[in-house]
Amino acid sequence: MGRILRILVVAVAVAATAGATMRATDALPSESLAATASSLGQKALNDPAAFDFVESLTTEIGPRLAGTEAHRRAVAWAEARLKAAGFENVHSEPFSFPAWIRGAESADIVGSAPQHLAVTALGGSVATDANGIEAEIVLFRTYDDLLAAAPGSLSGKIAVVTQRMVRAQDGSGYGAANPIRRYGASEAARRGAVAYLLRSLGTGSHRLPHTGALNYADGAPRIPAAALAIPDADQLERLAALGPVRIRLLLTPTIQENAPSWNVVGEVEGTERPYEVVLIGGHLDSWDLGTGATDDGAGVAIAFGAARLISGLPPRPRRTIRVVLFGAEEMNFSGAAYAQAHEGETGKIVVAGEADFGARNVYSVQLPGAAADSDFGHTLARIIAPLGANVDRRPALGGGDDIRELQKAGVPAVSLRQDGLDYFDTHHTADDTLDKIDPKQLDQAVAVWSAFTYLAAASDVDFRSLALTAK
Amino acid sequence: MGRILRILVVAVAVAATAGATMRATDALPSESLAATASSLGQKALNDPAAFDFVESLTTEIGPRLAGTEAHRRAVAWAEARLKAAGFENVHSEPFSFPAWIRGAESADIVGSAPQHLAVTALGGSVATDANGIEAEIVLFRTYDDLLAAAPGSLSGKIAVVTQRMVRAQDGSGYGAANPIRRYGASEAARRGAVAYLLRSLGTGSHRLPHTGALNYADGAPRIPAAALAIPDADQLERLAALGPVRIRLLLTPTIQENAPSWNVVGEVEGTERPYEVVLIGGHLDSWDLGTGATDDGAGVAIAFGAARLISGLPPRPRRTIRVVLFGAEEMNFSGAAYAQAHEGETGKIVVAGEADFGARNVYSVQLPGAAADSDFGHTLARIIAPLGANVDRRPALGGGDDIRELQKAGVPAVSLRQDGLDYFDTHHTADDTLDKIDPKQLDQAVAVWSAFTYLAAASDVDFRSLALTAK
Repeated sequence: MGRILRILVVAVAVAATAGATMRATDALPSESLAATASSLGQKALNDPAAFDFVESLTTEIGPRLAGTEAHRRAVAWAEARLKAAGFENVHSEPFSFPAWIRGAESADIVGSAPQHLAVTALGGSVATDANGIEAEIVLFRTYDDLLAAAPGSLSGKIAVVTQRMVRAQDGSGYGAANPIRRYGASEAARRGAVAYLLRSLGTGSHRLPHTGALNYADGAPRIPAAALAIPDADQLERLAALGPVRIRLLLTPTIQENAPSWNVVGEVEGTERPYEVVLIGGHLDSWDLGTGATDDGAGVAIAFGAARLISGLPPRPRRTIRVVLFGAEEMNFSGAAYAQAHEGETGKIVVAGEADFGARNVYSVQLPGAAADSDFGHTLARIIAPLGANVDRRPALGGGDDIRELQKAGVPAVSLRQDGLDYFDTHHTADDTLDKIDPKQLDQAVAVWSAFTYLAAASDVDFRSLALTAK
Repeated sequence: MGRILRILVVAVAVAATAGATMRATDALPSESLAATASSLGQKALNDPAAFDFVESLTTEIGPRLAGTEAHRRAVAWAEARLKAAGFENVHSEPFSFPAWIRGAESADIVGSAPQHLAVTALGGSVATDANGIEAEIVLFRTYDDLLAAAPGSLSGKIAVVTQRMVRAQDGSGYGAANPIRRYGASEAARRGAVAYLLRSLGTGSHRLPHTGALNYADGAPRIPAAALAIPDADQLERLAALGPVRIRLLLTPTIQENAPSWNVVGEVEGTERPYEVVLIGGHLDSWDLGTGATDDGAGVAIAFGAARLISGLPPRPRRTIRVVLFGAEEMNFSGAAYAQAHEGETGKIVVAGEADFGARNVYSVQLPGAAADSDFGHTLARIIAPLGANVDRRPALGGGDDIRELQKAGVPAVSLRQDGLDYFDTHHTADDTLDKIDPKQLDQAVAVWSAFTYLAAASDVDFRSLALTAK
């Protein structure tokens, strides 16, 4: 680029930035909008709609692994629910993906003192032989210890990693531990292991192992992989300290190529700028072990509940609120499918966020870019303070797994942070059931989502421009 | 009985009482005994022996259902441990009983919206057909509702009772709910039911059902019976409110008649009156689902730890301390076997108590009869107050399931009440594992047991006479 041209580009960018800032300033939420957002929040605190939604979903459908008949039933159920609640443009957008279906799964210590171990296959794991695989274990107390093992050093062995996941309100312990589940099998296979076990990524202490997807690396043998319940990982640590331990592992999952799934959509159409979209959602699919109450029945219920409250307002917001109930989050396919299908529309999506972190209260909202320090951010902070939530000065890094591809395409992401201190006690286990949801906390999350969503849809806020003015 | 004779009997009884009271007064624990008991308690607080015992048992043996090879290994392990710790007269006393061995177990809601339910067979349950039994359910929210059902009203149905067990520190919620598990199957069968399900007798909310023994009544058909995990009982309540529910239940347990078991014994022989016995114990057998950590690895560890500390004293107590690790408590056979084998000796057993209520701290000691208000009781109260335990003014009603038959034969029972507020969260589930034990609380229980056991064995206290002087 020549010098003149470069100056010109910079000048245009500065002008665009200034213009954007002006638009943002023009788009201050009025006192009337703020008052409406506040009253929506208060109304949400006593609205049973979100809890009813997740109660019905987890009771009448139950587990709904993407690619199964149960998920298909959930899609029909969700469409009917959205229509009954008065949403517009209700439909399901199909896509296909390789579905992974759990089979039998067991692990036993063999030898003179046999014991049963509670395990569950990782999503995506290949199967063992029909009779299982039996081998001695090599136990690593940290993932780094496994990574430090020499090539070939695990030849013929079952590698076991027992590193503990850290409990943290913001879920940061899960992010830190995630590579152990995602990549551990391939790392173990590269060193010769014939199977891989990890301590469940979880913070409770129950005999209910935590499943979750893995990613096989190209070029590494694909070996069976499963998570041990946390007390069973403890048990293996103690036994391995006493002498050699042999385990028989049986996993018989299957893959169904080109399985159908759907992203379910319903809208609250905007009055003045219906082509501008505030996208909120959760994921309708769940793991198969529990009934997907906190992951992510709560999330779809929150998005539903917030949009439904707003749809009942006179007057409705000027922009469209689009609720998307994603259809294969756990296997990491629905967000990409959505972004691909809506490639031409991403510029019209004002902001996007997915509620996918349980059913507890929102304690903090992270806005795109510098929006925390804008009039929008200040107004939102004032509205949600009585609900017990803050606007975080740090920008949102992501808006949820299903939002990632939209974000890459330039869509601003919002993150409503829910209290996750006990989220990983039951996450991805058979224990993810309705009784783990406190309706009052769920309602608070709906309240904060209502306030944010309404403000974003009823104002002219331009998060793209606010991103540009980040300090 | 004639009048003169009756007067004579009363007079002798009064004299005996007076004599007994005198003996009790003579047998005041001396200040030196009290000081030794206090220092034993303090020592126990920092003695790792009890926790090491239960750690080794639950790790190296694991689950040890009476009648299984694992229990046989536990018996050998226990004998070796008692000998290594210096106990005298270590031996195992055999008996036989009908062992119940768990098979496959599953329950599924069938129909247009199938769901899996977490269940476990009750101990003693008969099997279903090899293909399971499928029927519509009739759900009762209380046991009384089942009892109120008319004969024949459950014909061909699976009866389900979802009554909740109450959480209470003293475990009274379990006692109140126990008939639901013990007798529910026969009550349902009398009304025509083909199978029986109950909400687990438990206070947690996990997908881990609580097993436990049932008793079939004579004259009622024997039908298969299983416990639902608590979230699954909730789910059935919600589904039953929406319409008919059909369940397929599969249970394939077997009975092994005349299975061998053993009560393992080790003693700290008394110096002056070795034929007088203070009997303390726990039960070595466990349910098969967990590793029997709190039920009753903790109890055998407490008895072991307390007696071992006392055995290290110079001078040892005048009476013998006998540690009994019972061998089929969960199936209700070992206490009777012990009492029968020791029929001729019961008069020499000064007091008996079994630690079988978890691994938490002792908050209260219930003594036989009126002993709380004796010099023995006052001295014990003074010793255990710094440990955070009281002497309860109410007498012990029972000393544990394995002590019941001894008590019927006239042996005074002692009850060291442990905090049971969360005991039934994991009781009889796969979750009964070592991580549920807090070593510091376990040590406190050992401390109180040490103090009590030492005082009883080193003094001349006669609980039989104190029972007579109850106010």
